[in-house]
Amino acid sequence: MIPRYSRPQMTDIWSPETKFRIWFEIEAHACTALAEIGVIPKSAAETIWEKGNAATFDVARIDEIEAVTKHDVIAFLTHLAEIVGPDARFVHQGMTSSDVLDTCFNVQLTRASDLLLADLDGLLAALKRRAFEHKDTITIGRSHGIHAEPTTFGIKLAQAYAEFDRCRARLVAAREEIATCAISGAVGTFANIDPRVEEHVAEAMGLQPEAVSTQVIPRDRHAMFFATLGVIASSVERLAIEIRHLQRTEVLEAEEYFSPGQKGSSAMPHKRNPVLTENLTGLARMVRGYALPAMENVALWHERDISHSSVERMIGPDATVTLDFALARLTGVIDKLLVYPDHMMDNLNKFRGLVHSQRVLLALTQAGVSREDAYRLVQRNAMKVWEEGKDFLEELLADDEVTAALTEDQIREKFDLGYHTKHADTIFNRVFGES
Amino acid sequence: MIPRYSRPQMTDIWSPETKFRIWFEIEAHACTALAEIGVIPKSAAETIWEKGNAATFDVARIDEIEAVTKHDVIAFLTHLAEIVGPDARFVHQGMTSSDVLDTCFNVQLTRASDLLLADLDGLLAALKRRAFEHKDTITIGRSHGIHAEPTTFGIKLAQAYAEFDRCRARLVAAREEIATCAISGAVGTFANIDPRVEEHVAEAMGLQPEAVSTQVIPRDRHAMFFATLGVIASSVERLAIEIRHLQRTEVLEAEEYFSPGQKGSSAMPHKRNPVLTENLTGLARMVRGYALPAMENVALWHERDISHSSVERMIGPDATVTLDFALARLTGVIDKLLVYPDHMMDNLNKFRGLVHSQRVLLALTQAGVSREDAYRLVQRNAMKVWEEGKDFLEELLADDEVTAALTEDQIREKFDLGYHTKHADTIFNRVFGES
Amino acid sequence: MIPRYSRPQMTDIWSPETKFRIWFEIEAHACTALAEIGVIPKSAAETIWEKGNAATFDVARIDEIEAVTKHDVIAFLTHLAEIVGPDARFVHQGMTSSDVLDTCFNVQLTRASDLLLADLDGLLAALKRRAFEHKDTITIGRSHGIHAEPTTFGIKLAQAYAEFDRCRARLVAAREEIATCAISGAVGTFANIDPRVEEHVAEAMGLQPEAVSTQVIPRDRHAMFFATLGVIASSVERLAIEIRHLQRTEVLEAEEYFSPGQKGSSAMPHKRNPVLTENLTGLARMVRGYALPAMENVALWHERDISHSSVERMIGPDATVTLDFALARLTGVIDKLLVYPDHMMDNLNKFRGLVHSQRVLLALTQAGVSREDAYRLVQRNAMKVWEEGKDFLEELLADDEVTAALTEDQIREKFDLGYHTKHADTIFNRVFGES
Amino acid sequence: MIPRYSRPQMTDIWSPETKFRIWFEIEAHACTALAEIGVIPKSAAETIWEKGNAATFDVARIDEIEAVTKHDVIAFLTHLAEIVGPDARFVHQGMTSSDVLDTCFNVQLTRASDLLLADLDGLLAALKRRAFEHKDTITIGRSHGIHAEPTTFGIKLAQAYAEFDRCRARLVAAREEIATCAISGAVGTFANIDPRVEEHVAEAMGLQPEAVSTQVIPRDRHAMFFATLGVIASSVERLAIEIRHLQRTEVLEAEEYFSPGQKGSSAMPHKRNPVLTENLTGLARMVRGYALPAMENVALWHERDISHSSVERMIGPDATVTLDFALARLTGVIDKLLVYPDHMMDNLNKFRGLVHSQRVLLALTQAGVSREDAYRLVQRNAMKVWEEGKDFLEELLADDEVTAALTEDQIREKFDLGYHTKHADTIFNRVFGES
Repeated sequence: MIPRYSRPQMTDIWSPETKFRIWFEIEAHACTALAEIGVIPKSAAETIWEKGNAATFDVARIDEIEAVTKHDVIAFLTHLAEIVGPDARFVHQGMTSSDVLDTCFNVQLTRASDLLLADLDGLLAALKRRAFEHKDTITIGRSHGIHAEPTTFGIKLAQAYAEFDRCRARLVAAREEIATCAISGAVGTFANIDPRVEEHVAEAMGLQPEAVSTQVIPRDRHAMFFATLGVIASSVERLAIEIRHLQRTEVLEAEEYFSPGQKGSSAMPHKRNPVLTENLTGLARMVRGYALPAMENVALWHERDISHSSVERMIGPDATVTLDFALARLTGVIDKLLVYPDHMMDNLNKFRGLVHSQRVLLALTQAGVSREDAYRLVQRNAMKVWEEGKDFLEELLADDEVTAALTEDQIREKFDLGYHTKHADTIFNRVFGES
Repeated sequence: MIPRYSRPQMTDIWSPETKFRIWFEIEAHACTALAEIGVIPKSAAETIWEKGNAATFDVARIDEIEAVTKHDVIAFLTHLAEIVGPDARFVHQGMTSSDVLDTCFNVQLTRASDLLLADLDGLLAALKRRAFEHKDTITIGRSHGIHAEPTTFGIKLAQAYAEFDRCRARLVAAREEIATCAISGAVGTFANIDPRVEEHVAEAMGLQPEAVSTQVIPRDRHAMFFATLGVIASSVERLAIEIRHLQRTEVLEAEEYFSPGQKGSSAMPHKRNPVLTENLTGLARMVRGYALPAMENVALWHERDISHSSVERMIGPDATVTLDFALARLTGVIDKLLVYPDHMMDNLNKFRGLVHSQRVLLALTQAGVSREDAYRLVQRNAMKVWEEGKDFLEELLADDEVTAALTEDQIREKFDLGYHTKHADTIFNRVFGES
Repeated sequence: MIPRYSRPQMTDIWSPETKFRIWFEIEAHACTALAEIGVIPKSAAETIWEKGNAATFDVARIDEIEAVTKHDVIAFLTHLAEIVGPDARFVHQGMTSSDVLDTCFNVQLTRASDLLLADLDGLLAALKRRAFEHKDTITIGRSHGIHAEPTTFGIKLAQAYAEFDRCRARLVAAREEIATCAISGAVGTFANIDPRVEEHVAEAMGLQPEAVSTQVIPRDRHAMFFATLGVIASSVERLAIEIRHLQRTEVLEAEEYFSPGQKGSSAMPHKRNPVLTENLTGLARMVRGYALPAMENVALWHERDISHSSVERMIGPDATVTLDFALARLTGVIDKLLVYPDHMMDNLNKFRGLVHSQRVLLALTQAGVSREDAYRLVQRNAMKVWEEGKDFLEELLADDEVTAALTEDQIREKFDLGYHTKHADTIFNRVFGES
Repeated sequence: MIPRYSRPQMTDIWSPETKFRIWFEIEAHACTALAEIGVIPKSAAETIWEKGNAATFDVARIDEIEAVTKHDVIAFLTHLAEIVGPDARFVHQGMTSSDVLDTCFNVQLTRASDLLLADLDGLLAALKRRAFEHKDTITIGRSHGIHAEPTTFGIKLAQAYAEFDRCRARLVAAREEIATCAISGAVGTFANIDPRVEEHVAEAMGLQPEAVSTQVIPRDRHAMFFATLGVIASSVERLAIEIRHLQRTEVLEAEEYFSPGQKGSSAMPHKRNPVLTENLTGLARMVRGYALPAMENVALWHERDISHSSVERMIGPDATVTLDFALARLTGVIDKLLVYPDHMMDNLNKFRGLVHSQRVLLALTQAGVSREDAYRLVQRNAMKVWEEGKDFLEELLADDEVTAALTEDQIREKFDLGYHTKHADTIFNRVFGES
């Protein structure tokens, strides 16, 4: 996570201010519950809420205390005591630092998920809009980077929509994975804290109680979360690479938006580089890379060790901030993508009708020509197109063996691009529930 | 995937015989649908089913043909034609190789998922049985590898149960991710094949039609699948490492089963090595490692390229076979795990009552002693235990400042291990719905 | 590692037959040394060599014994005893299984390195030959997939040569990393075996003694080895992707070899897919992925645990066999690559001279025109080329403001492609030491 | 990279101030060379050096310009022009941004390497000192976490020394990999800049000219660099885990330093957690994880794309700062490590002599007892030790069958710990060249 690839809403989640506010809320909600079950005075809980809500936590002061105590939660509690006064001794009763830290981390990840879900919604909306706009924009489909058969640009975008819709569903599941709360005390036995406190805090913070925490919330949840971000990043990469390909000089079927007054990177007007999608390709590599340390974090020793902590202090912000930035950037790219249907048609026609050769082949076969003969007929006309620059339709119409099997109308009909796009509506219905 | 770490049921899924049988079924179901909508004769579809069902596909023969055609699906179709006769020309109408290959791969992954789910069920059953067996077996909980507070061995296993139960839910979701079918022809437009064929084949093979396939089924699905296996493997590693720790010479609270007649690896009877769980640690590293190429596979170029294929030919079997083996091995380890409650108690008592120091500290505070004084009192007695080998309870009872604040009964009560395990039932209820 | 992507010379290294032969040699060389220093009779060492050399180790028989002993080295030694007779009791004196296993693994990796080095030599030779062939074949250089300035196809290949030459040097270093031998007994203290035995075996097997082995050879060596293979695989990917790009329909500057009689995958003669380089892209992902478990293997517990073993049984063959296959395939691709200089020139001229705009800009500046004015002059002529299909040279010559600053000859000179390739020899000299 | 795990010397390398200063030096050295070969006036080069050396680059001002130009190098050059005045137009002649950016990045990585090498030297010195201190400190060697045979704590540290000495050699090689310079202009052809400029800048900046740069320096160099950091991090993890194991409550053979006045994390004096080495375990996971995106960066498209840039803006600082911090922390841990020879001996004696069983077994065999009988004799006495708490030596001396084969002196001699450590000097000589 670096400022260049960060957006404030997401970085705010990871600021010390936000963290301390969440810590306070966890502690204060725990006090409410402790007061409810009679462990601490109700007035104390009220005082804690009042003074804490009124206060701004002083990050510099907390850092100062931590420099002495070498313990971040104790430093915070000390500062909180400075704010709350004598009732502060009722704070954190029977709890461990992990109760605060792990629950806070999950609150942060949950909030980050909400931003990422909103990002995905924005991306999906852009994809849908552009997909419908280009539902019938014919373009060549490519396999192996080689022209294959026609499709539409809208279908390309519909596929991206379907993919990010799956990503959305995965993120909803990943959010659920980490929306848990632990207030279970040392080694998670609830020896010093009633399970009802955990239930109360969980509900108040929008989380579920962790079934068994062993002082820490189990890290398989986080592994799944970061792995999911890695998969989403991989889908970002796929769409980014599609656009990079389409913007290649020789293809130029689409381009990242380039404002009218914008100067290119040189005197050459064609020199508009797909730098946003190249950037996204790199960011995807980073987010994917964070999945691994997250998986290695799972195997903590016994009830807990703290090896996960340094990893999470980094990948918590790094992965969410970077993916948030990437999704927003991709949305902008899609939203303003310059699409060139004429170039698409030029490229499709690059081989003067050859793209229809398979249909002609099938038609010949269906007209009773043996597969071998049909292949030979198509091939010999195709070669003239390929090697001598002839037009495929004209060559076929001039080939007696071909016209012996198929009428001119039948041959011409095989050059109808609509044949290839006739199921665009079917596909759109499947993806969008409308077409 | 190597024979040493493979089980036949899973490797069978990846055998050429199974693959060709699935290919046949996909092709034959497509014929049924094509006949239904009038594209090919019903009699042809029937013949194809009859002859195909009666035949054994000859792998060597198919390999022989492939050596010439350099194309596996064509080789298979040629062999199928040898079996079916003239009606073979109705097979594969309007389809591409990818329709067969991708749908088959997903059938294989789905079947692999079913075996893995069964593996998880077996593991969960073993964990549950042993967890209830040891619900009240007191053991020291450890944070950072250092004694913390008591818990029970059953709670440890309940946590593992909860973790693998989550893994199970993740695998159910991952199975759903890849249970899709594509019969959509070149670049996925359905130009040459009616979408109803796909719907029929999907249902017949137990799959869902892929909303938009672009000749290939999108690889974000597979990335999610293999990432999920990587997370499950990480949970395998966690439990394996727990057992390795428990079996350490100095800890020896549990051991992998060692048959009565079995010779240790040397003359030393304590030399029983946790080789199964060490092996599982390594296998987990492998399964986790396969998640990455799967994620890199997502960004195929345009409608498809074939770079995913070599990866999947490897990780398809490698990841599923290895995880299947690992889960089965882990189940065996848990099922027969030798548990030593006496050693657990010995270890817990290693510091002669020090484990209760925090409770005493809290009790002093609650009795009105200031936090600083309470800490000082506990610390000075604790140091005698630690440095001079004294008994903590006796020291406390002999400390006037302590007895001024707490009665003997109150002090003794703090040494009740039941205090720490009183919520074992709560936890079991949360995890198992019973206790 | 699967047969489809394997070559026999490399798989042979990993066969049971080879492994048992290496095990025998390690044991027999150890016997020679033990006899030399008087620990066992010389006649015994001689008998062991004679009988062992004459014998073929029976893999099935060893497997049979292992099924009982559950220990592969003991199974082998038992079988060796069947062959050698009573003198077999002098075999393996003071050694541990790891001495045999780790030394053997390093012998295998060293041999694998030698094959990979030969592969790289073959690839370098092909790259050099084709580089010189195309030293002056002008082609457009591309940044961001967008036309930039001219270069030559030979320079592209010279860069690949330089890259694989670095890979070669890295592999030489990696080979040295794992060319070590350990015969140091339990926990590596030489308590039961004289260090001179290790020295003798090391020299005989072409290895260096490991300075400190702790029963195992430290796995940082292997981590470095497999990481190096991952880097080499990444370079394979780079060149593979270059070719995939060049073979794209719209670019078509080069193609994987396609034999004259070979049928394309359809009726369309342009449908020649870069399947070999796509395949290489996938294989690179796999080899790269193996670096991670190798790095995780480093942190064995204390003097040794066996978690590395399952990983290495897989990645030992998987990584070396796959990279060997990939390098050989890439060499074939380069060797027979179809190169189309005409298409290169067509693509370069796609914008009718615009590629020279930067030179014109500089010339104007050098002729005293302000940078802003020069930019404006170039830009307005460039836009006519870009938007109206005009020829850049003609437009410039017709622009009074341009001709006011530069003579016709000066302008024409800026369109000399030789300007861009004048340092091809310099570059070739740097890379090949000749040009 | 986060402040908590950063050290100023390393973060300074990555500050904007340092970066702009390096950019200036690259540009100014290029001017010197351009003046030397007569392309620009010598006085201009001198002015540029003078004004640039005297100036402090204003980061905020450059950011301000970049906000408009969207190009960092142009922003810097604009600011430089503000400082230098009219002669600024001679700066950057014939160069591309990549010439500056890539050369600067390599300067930064080279400087980072120098700091890391110094870190490793510090760590090696600490390891050597502690190794010699404990060359003869006997401790039990463990395989699989189970007691095996005795070794010394010094040998453990000597192994770590040898491992980090290899890491040092790898880092020297990795430093050489990235110590290259490119000043080769667009697509790297030197069309607009004389190769002598590159040679001059390279020498002046302590780098080698890149043989073929294609506007960018090839990223296989960086992949190798970051992979090497990943391997070093894995060795950090190994030593960290060793210490975590040794500090376990039940083992307690060594501890991270704990200052006399320091309060434990609770009232229990044994509660000293190995938090530094746990932290190192997590940091190692991070550094290892950065190797992957670095490898994925290799396959840039054609002469260059910019996807590597976002990755490197992150992992450049992240990997070097984190590893620097980790090495320094590990050095501190080793330097001040509390070592408990008494606990080592207690643990070694945990099984009352059983650790010598293998030697007795061998002695019996050498005395003519059959292997089977010898095993039986040792085993039956060992079981008494194991199950009944007897002393192994006493049991053997009381066993008639044993004493029939071996004299009391012979038996007692087998309990000499010196037998196991007799080659400590050999090993130290191998590692340190002295003992």
